[in-house]
Amino acid sequence: MAKEVDVSTLETGGARDYVDPPPAPLVDIDELGKWSLYRAVIAEFVATLLFLYITVATVIGYKHQTDASGSDAACGGVGILGIAWAFGGMIFILVYCTAGISGGHINPAVTFGLFLARKVSLVRALLYMAAQSLGAICGVALVKGFQSGFYARYGGGANEVSPGYSTGTGLAAEIIGTFVLVYTVFSATDPKRNARDSHVPVLAPLPIGFAVFMVHLATIPVTGTGINPARSLGAAVIYNKDKPWDDHWIFWVGPLAGAAIAAFYHQYILRAGAIKALGSFRSNA
Amino acid sequence: MAKEVDVSTLETGGARDYVDPPPAPLVDIDELGKWSLYRAVIAEFVATLLFLYITVATVIGYKHQTDASGSDAACGGVGILGIAWAFGGMIFILVYCTAGISGGHINPAVTFGLFLARKVSLVRALLYMAAQSLGAICGVALVKGFQSGFYARYGGGANEVSPGYSTGTGLAAEIIGTFVLVYTVFSATDPKRNARDSHVPVLAPLPIGFAVFMVHLATIPVTGTGINPARSLGAAVIYNKDKPWDDHWIFWVGPLAGAAIAAFYHQYILRAGAIKALGSFRSNA
Amino acid sequence: MAKEVDVSTLETGGARDYVDPPPAPLVDIDELGKWSLYRAVIAEFVATLLFLYITVATVIGYKHQTDASGSDAACGGVGILGIAWAFGGMIFILVYCTAGISGGHINPAVTFGLFLARKVSLVRALLYMAAQSLGAICGVALVKGFQSGFYARYGGGANEVSPGYSTGTGLAAEIIGTFVLVYTVFSATDPKRNARDSHVPVLAPLPIGFAVFMVHLATIPVTGTGINPARSLGAAVIYNKDKPWDDHWIFWVGPLAGAAIAAFYHQYILRAGAIKALGSFRSNA
Amino acid sequence: MAKEVDVSTLETGGARDYVDPPPAPLVDIDELGKWSLYRAVIAEFVATLLFLYITVATVIGYKHQTDASGSDAACGGVGILGIAWAFGGMIFILVYCTAGISGGHINPAVTFGLFLARKVSLVRALLYMAAQSLGAICGVALVKGFQSGFYARYGGGANEVSPGYSTGTGLAAEIIGTFVLVYTVFSATDPKRNARDSHVPVLAPLPIGFAVFMVHLATIPVTGTGINPARSLGAAVIYNKDKPWDDHWIFWVGPLAGAAIAAFYHQYILRAGAIKALGSFRSNA
Repeated sequence: MAKEVDVSTLETGGARDYVDPPPAPLVDIDELGKWSLYRAVIAEFVATLLFLYITVATVIGYKHQTDASGSDAACGGVGILGIAWAFGGMIFILVYCTAGISGGHINPAVTFGLFLARKVSLVRALLYMAAQSLGAICGVALVKGFQSGFYARYGGGANEVSPGYSTGTGLAAEIIGTFVLVYTVFSATDPKRNARDSHVPVLAPLPIGFAVFMVHLATIPVTGTGINPARSLGAAVIYNKDKPWDDHWIFWVGPLAGAAIAAFYHQYILRAGAIKALGSFRSNA
Repeated sequence: MAKEVDVSTLETGGARDYVDPPPAPLVDIDELGKWSLYRAVIAEFVATLLFLYITVATVIGYKHQTDASGSDAACGGVGILGIAWAFGGMIFILVYCTAGISGGHINPAVTFGLFLARKVSLVRALLYMAAQSLGAICGVALVKGFQSGFYARYGGGANEVSPGYSTGTGLAAEIIGTFVLVYTVFSATDPKRNARDSHVPVLAPLPIGFAVFMVHLATIPVTGTGINPARSLGAAVIYNKDKPWDDHWIFWVGPLAGAAIAAFYHQYILRAGAIKALGSFRSNA
Repeated sequence: MAKEVDVSTLETGGARDYVDPPPAPLVDIDELGKWSLYRAVIAEFVATLLFLYITVATVIGYKHQTDASGSDAACGGVGILGIAWAFGGMIFILVYCTAGISGGHINPAVTFGLFLARKVSLVRALLYMAAQSLGAICGVALVKGFQSGFYARYGGGANEVSPGYSTGTGLAAEIIGTFVLVYTVFSATDPKRNARDSHVPVLAPLPIGFAVFMVHLATIPVTGTGINPARSLGAAVIYNKDKPWDDHWIFWVGPLAGAAIAAFYHQYILRAGAIKALGSFRSNA
Repeated sequence: MAKEVDVSTLETGGARDYVDPPPAPLVDIDELGKWSLYRAVIAEFVATLLFLYITVATVIGYKHQTDASGSDAACGGVGILGIAWAFGGMIFILVYCTAGISGGHINPAVTFGLFLARKVSLVRALLYMAAQSLGAICGVALVKGFQSGFYARYGGGANEVSPGYSTGTGLAAEIIGTFVLVYTVFSATDPKRNARDSHVPVLAPLPIGFAVFMVHLATIPVTGTGINPARSLGAAVIYNKDKPWDDHWIFWVGPLAGAAIAAFYHQYILRAGAIKALGSFRSNA
């Protein structure tokens, strides 16, 4: 390991045009004394609250509209396409707004993936996840407060496996969906790609938002689309019915597993971790 | 206060990579003698006129289409999703076009938020608000002129609290919706973030437009979505019915309050105003 | 005039951070000997052909789908929202692809506006308009060739004033709609704004595409939305019915007038042409 | 040929502000020993798998929703507009994520076009096409595994010429559609345009995704839209019915022909290959 050689250095003749930051420590004592950590935790709380408020309000409002306008006019509201836009569009603007403050996670699965890749400390990861979960609960509570009559009648925006799909299918859909999202996040935040392709740093929040939009188009019929444990928790706590609670483990296990696979794919396949180890092995010989 | 130390300077070892402009004066006499002020006021007038013309025409045209094609075909027009796109998309292109001329406010709540943060002078803020209000009235008047038969029949694009929602809910929806918009505007125009993340200055008009799009998806069923007092005023003046006038205060108080909260959140939480004061206190000890 | 002083120079203390190119000559003999002119004309032809092919195919395909699926299901196709996206999205990608070759006009009204502002020569403007018109005719002809059965039955994508609207309304809608488009084009191509706001040159094709999208949302119910004389001509020639031909003058006069007003607004109000003249007057005193 | 002179050099007075890389060799032995080739092949496999998984799941889920909600409510799902977004949006995020790893082809037609332009070696092109085809099969297989009940009933996302259209129309629609896509890819990856217009490198994945979105809006009614032989192959293999297999040749011949025409158009018309040859001829005289 002492002689590990970065293959990207070899390819470009010794000079690297980017810097990978060192792995984040598990516990960073210095970090705890800085306002920037607490500011980031507040930003994650506010962003997740706004995310759930806007998206669940869109879901409830859509169902109310289509119901009110009679059975013939199921398209009186914004439609499932509009709901998918709400989830994706909110992630776009919230990542845009909070990237410079907290990194713009707004999702415990994203935080978990970045923690596995050692890009955030354990302490920061745990504080973020707590803030995201609390923010999500408050966001859904706001919707219930505003639309008390309609909230419970229209399913509360809660995630559950739809009739006709097995638990395994729901779990797999959550794993792959979160993989799409966290893979995009890793691509957007990679220092090597940021240095080489100008579209990577400049567009970053847009493809992340689109990843969420795309996964919702595909899996709203299967699970309602979680891919964000805080989002599923917030709706489950406020809606508080049996079926969402029974299925709730799927919306933690699936996203966290998907994020872990994306972290592995990015670090060991795309960033050539595996071959780096081989390279260092050979150069020892 | 004389010894105030910026924590961001401390963190980076003394050197700052950005410049915060000084606070704008309340009254700037020099400004009044420059063409650039009047040009900016004209640009705000024209932009708000175009904003209302396109969006209210979309609303009226949509309702006309769905009505004409019979009750079975509620999706003959662009849909509520199309209406939300019209509001968000117009803000995107108008901010793109006027940012370099007037700052691209097109909304008295945005102007008010930026005034509170001392980014525009009081005189400029008042002139902008007047131009925006007048532009909105003219824009809606154009739609009425073009579609006289349909304009009044289809609600005139006016904002009011929908049946089934309380006044308090409408007010809260306007406050939070405007917070989302003005929070995005502050993020997009912050010199510190502009210097550090290349996506902030380059994408700026797009997330601002998306913020408007998102809030419309969520709150069209509640209030028709104001989050812009000029937009609500223009439609109220031209439609001129009791209900929109009775509710009209909501569409000034809500947006202005939301903008003020966003200004406070950005200046004192995210830009660390609070901890700066503490920092200067400790460095005095 | 010999002593004309640029106010933007005065404001920044003498140094200008951008260069306005000199006005294009009416006839540029050198230009006629260069391959880059003919390449640009070919690119305009191909781009306008693809624009009409994709958009008119979307219109016809949508009407065919909704018709085939019965009267209850008017939303079986992409909807009017999808049609508006087709027009706006194609302009986005075609401006992106041809901006570096021909300037990416794809619209005689845009060419006319840029000619009035002396940004293209008269010879180039006339060649572009001829190529655009011919390309549009070929693009619609392709759709008719592919969908002969449906093309005539579903209106051929031709522009005409809809029942219930006066000729004056149709003309005014075309003028304002084209103003929105050409105003965006002027903002995107202004050297001063390009130098000062990084979003102006980088996003340029996107707001131009969105301008087209927005105007279609608003005025499809009124005129089907022209704002591009080549588009209206291509559909009129291939569809070849009385009503579109009777109204056809509206789709030349309206867009050309709208483009002229946008050129005037940009050159004399926003770029301070008027005050520059005044400034030079005063500095003579 | 030895005296070939680049006209772009002539035009700018001898200095070129960009570098065209040399043509890729047909077989590059060095390449075969590098991890970066195999990593790129893996990335193409994974990206095409995710592309087919998300898009075909959207198609099946949409048809299931509209069917389940009864014949009156054809708009219960995301609609054809949502399906078009799924195809275009996935290409946007996958090109964004894989551009720096593999070039972001995700489509044998794109690989073929870039091979013809000598931008990738023959070996790399063949490996990419194999990985894309295999990835597409696996992606559709996942959808079938998850939605076994609905997959076959709703057509399996397979491409075939729709009733009422001739084989020739289907083939022509595929040729033109792929031309739009590959023309956009060439524009986005041209070193000359990248050097001159800042929007070209920064936005690149977005117009490529939009090109796919646009072509789907226009030709879903004709062929279901292939423009990607791997996509058509994956669905044909898993669905495995006669009609898609009978028409399958169209979805290879059409896209490959469209890509070849786009390569020719870009290299010989827009990049002035033709006139370069003439120029070198004249300079020999």
